Amino acid sequence: MATPTVSYSVVVRVELSHRPGTLGRLTTAIGEIGGNILGLDIIEVSGDVIVRDVTVLAADADHAAAIRNAAESVDGVHVRSVMDRTFRLHLGGKIEVRGRHPILSRDDLSMAYTPGVARVATEIAERPVQAHRYSIKANSVAVVSNGSAVLGLGNIGPYGAIPVMEGKAQLFKEFADIDAFPICLRTTSVQETVETVERLEPVFGGINLEDFAAPECFEIEDALKASLDIPVFHDDQHGTAVVVLAALGNSLKVVDKRMSDISVVIAGAGAAGVAIAKILVNAGVTNIMVADRRGLIFDGREEFSGAKAWLAEYTNPEKRMGSVGEALSGSDVFVGVSGPGLIGRSEVESMAKNPIVFGLANPTPEIMPEEIEGIAAVVATGRSDYPNQINNVLCFPGIFRGALDVGAMSISESMKLAAAHAIANAVADDELSPSYVVPSVFNRSVVAAVAAEVAEAARRDDLLRHIIEQ
Amino acid sequence: MATPTVSYSVVVRVELSHRPGTLGRLTTAIGEIGGNILGLDIIEVSGDVIVRDVTVLAADADHAAAIRNAAESVDGVHVRSVMDRTFRLHLGGKIEVRGRHPILSRDDLSMAYTPGVARVATEIAERPVQAHRYSIKANSVAVVSNGSAVLGLGNIGPYGAIPVMEGKAQLFKEFADIDAFPICLRTTSVQETVETVERLEPVFGGINLEDFAAPECFEIEDALKASLDIPVFHDDQHGTAVVVLAALGNSLKVVDKRMSDISVVIAGAGAAGVAIAKILVNAGVTNIMVADRRGLIFDGREEFSGAKAWLAEYTNPEKRMGSVGEALSGSDVFVGVSGPGLIGRSEVESMAKNPIVFGLANPTPEIMPEEIEGIAAVVATGRSDYPNQINNVLCFPGIFRGALDVGAMSISESMKLAAAHAIANAVADDELSPSYVVPSVFNRSVVAAVAAEVAEAARRDDLLRHIIEQ
Repeated sequence: MATPTVSYSVVVRVELSHRPGTLGRLTTAIGEIGGNILGLDIIEVSGDVIVRDVTVLAADADHAAAIRNAAESVDGVHVRSVMDRTFRLHLGGKIEVRGRHPILSRDDLSMAYTPGVARVATEIAERPVQAHRYSIKANSVAVVSNGSAVLGLGNIGPYGAIPVMEGKAQLFKEFADIDAFPICLRTTSVQETVETVERLEPVFGGINLEDFAAPECFEIEDALKASLDIPVFHDDQHGTAVVVLAALGNSLKVVDKRMSDISVVIAGAGAAGVAIAKILVNAGVTNIMVADRRGLIFDGREEFSGAKAWLAEYTNPEKRMGSVGEALSGSDVFVGVSGPGLIGRSEVESMAKNPIVFGLANPTPEIMPEEIEGIAAVVATGRSDYPNQINNVLCFPGIFRGALDVGAMSISESMKLAAAHAIANAVADDELSPSYVVPSVFNRSVVAAVAAEVAEAARRDDLLRHIIEQ
Repeated sequence: MATPTVSYSVVVRVELSHRPGTLGRLTTAIGEIGGNILGLDIIEVSGDVIVRDVTVLAADADHAAAIRNAAESVDGVHVRSVMDRTFRLHLGGKIEVRGRHPILSRDDLSMAYTPGVARVATEIAERPVQAHRYSIKANSVAVVSNGSAVLGLGNIGPYGAIPVMEGKAQLFKEFADIDAFPICLRTTSVQETVETVERLEPVFGGINLEDFAAPECFEIEDALKASLDIPVFHDDQHGTAVVVLAALGNSLKVVDKRMSDISVVIAGAGAAGVAIAKILVNAGVTNIMVADRRGLIFDGREEFSGAKAWLAEYTNPEKRMGSVGEALSGSDVFVGVSGPGLIGRSEVESMAKNPIVFGLANPTPEIMPEEIEGIAAVVATGRSDYPNQINNVLCFPGIFRGALDVGAMSISESMKLAAAHAIANAVADDELSPSYVVPSVFNRSVVAAVAAEVAEAARRDDLLRHIIEQ
């Protein structure tokens, strides 16, 4: 059975008779079937009955149901209800939209709305750049998805995507004080997605594309970057790539190797794989091999178009063929953005000395860390229950914060490199170790550091919008 | 000169020398040119200088500049800065998007985002109706505009519209605890507007169309009502119509007339005029005449299409021709949704006994209330500085609150009538008077009353969505 987790935790509301030992029998019964009791709160006491809420971590939905049954079967216990804590948290939505100033009087109303607002509206109509100063556009990001590649769930559509995009919006506010709003599009067409986002642009200061399937994601991002003068950022590509680069930079310090000397094998040529390859090229890695489902991509394997054509041209200089396993032999770094259990222990053993292994498939990585303990020098995953979690939340809040702070019109390659640099530097040299190459997502100093370096890079790249001060 | 108002108020930051009488000379100088001092705050005291913020109501932008100059010219006074309070209120936007629950720990993160969110996403993907329960769709409204007819400003485009739509979103939250988000569309095409809103629909529980020009607004609303299963409501039409009906109902009580007996002249056949005519027909008024710029609309005047064809068919049963002024002779009610100064005192004198005059053009009504004092029995305007303000904020928060509360799939005619009824009833019979036929916008009981009656009407009309309880 999987480990009980908070994601499957339930609150079981029970009526307990006053007979001695009832509570003990209940907790024993829950414990015997593997339920992990987190809390026991008294809700009401009346006559001969005590009502308690028992908060229990379960392993999955079936386990939660079994816990209910176990509770019900205890003598002197009646289960009133079982509430799923994750669903309860989502009830009515996770975010809210509210005024930054109260409207308590007619005066407040006449400045925030008519007639006062007409002056601000006129100012912006005459000089649209002022929207970046006098409206929410100064601090807003659209979290846009069509639900075509949500988390590990695949194409679940725009309705299923809502809670994920809402969660992302919540993280934007929580980590970077950015006002993000979920936009879940009922279309799968590239053209319709692009034109819809273009039409929505006025109210947003930035566009965060999320969970779009490859290869459409590349086309959508390229088109929007070309047509809009606000930052457009596909987080599944660039957020992942930035954090991978940060983690890789620190890992190389641990094993004392240099970017220019290493060979890297990337498993997966989707959104993340392509972006990781590109950022590593920009960071000075010369020997990168990327594999899709058919094996290593090399110039001449077939007629490639789009992102894979780029990979064929700019990676795999030796035009090696074959599988990921074959490519790993003698390589320094493995980055997996593919699927569970793709590689085995012997393949890691075949790598060069002090192998670095990033198995980022979620929730089950390409190889479990325990399988290569003592073999790999540094191991990272996408999971929070192992060391070195590669988590985009280390990147996207800070990169947008920095861009919005200075009014950057786009997010350039050097802004991404700056973000990676800031994330890597959040782990001090004397803290650096094989199990600590990326900072914790709860290290709140990361956002400010990323924002500052990203803003500086935007300035260097001359990407700042000229906002009129008045 | 116009009256100084809060919409043009400024904060003048001045350095005052310690010499006695300096403050007195400053306030005198400001007062002499008509500035209305609202506050005098000390900001800092250092050596021989006191820094104060002087908050002054001005009449307009030129007056504010004159106030600055007057202050600067006072001996011992140096003006550091002048800040426009309305613009300051808009700095960085008026609304924010934030989480309803904090994310303080890894456990919070794993329920609000991955991995926990995947279960909620899957549930909604399998049963999309659950988005109305477990996402912001339960409580969200898009405030959609293309900026083609903003306030009295006309076609100022989607950027200029942002602060207005933001203000509207703020009112939704403030008055009805609804999470509304401004959507300002960079398109003027009916077809593109409709398809864009359709693609955006997943995350929203309702669509409030705002400040769209006629006749496009009719087409857009009709198309969206037909294709979406969430409430779609063009506030400039129906919000205005609902409040007019409420005010008219109470006005008729004041003059002791009945809906079925009166004749009504409506000046203006745009969004508001058409909707007012329609709701009055539904409320039982049989003799309505509507005029556009060419005069009264009657069957046979020309080849009409769309909304005007409806007016030609269902209003003006006597097929009267001519001007608004001519039509007013002998009529009971005038409703102006046209432009300033359209009618004169003599035309109101020509109306039937106890005329009811609603001059709703903003900011200057079709006739100023003081011109017809003693002639009209009841006068209403769109302004807050006269009695009987016809303000949509009496309607839209409650009508959406009621619809969302019960999961109504649309807003029906009877829901609008119910809203008007609730607004009218917020003025008790013993409070009713010629200068009190609509409640104050700050009467917070109105929203709850409107919501309750609207919800009940939705239930009667069998418009409720079946949300799965689990």
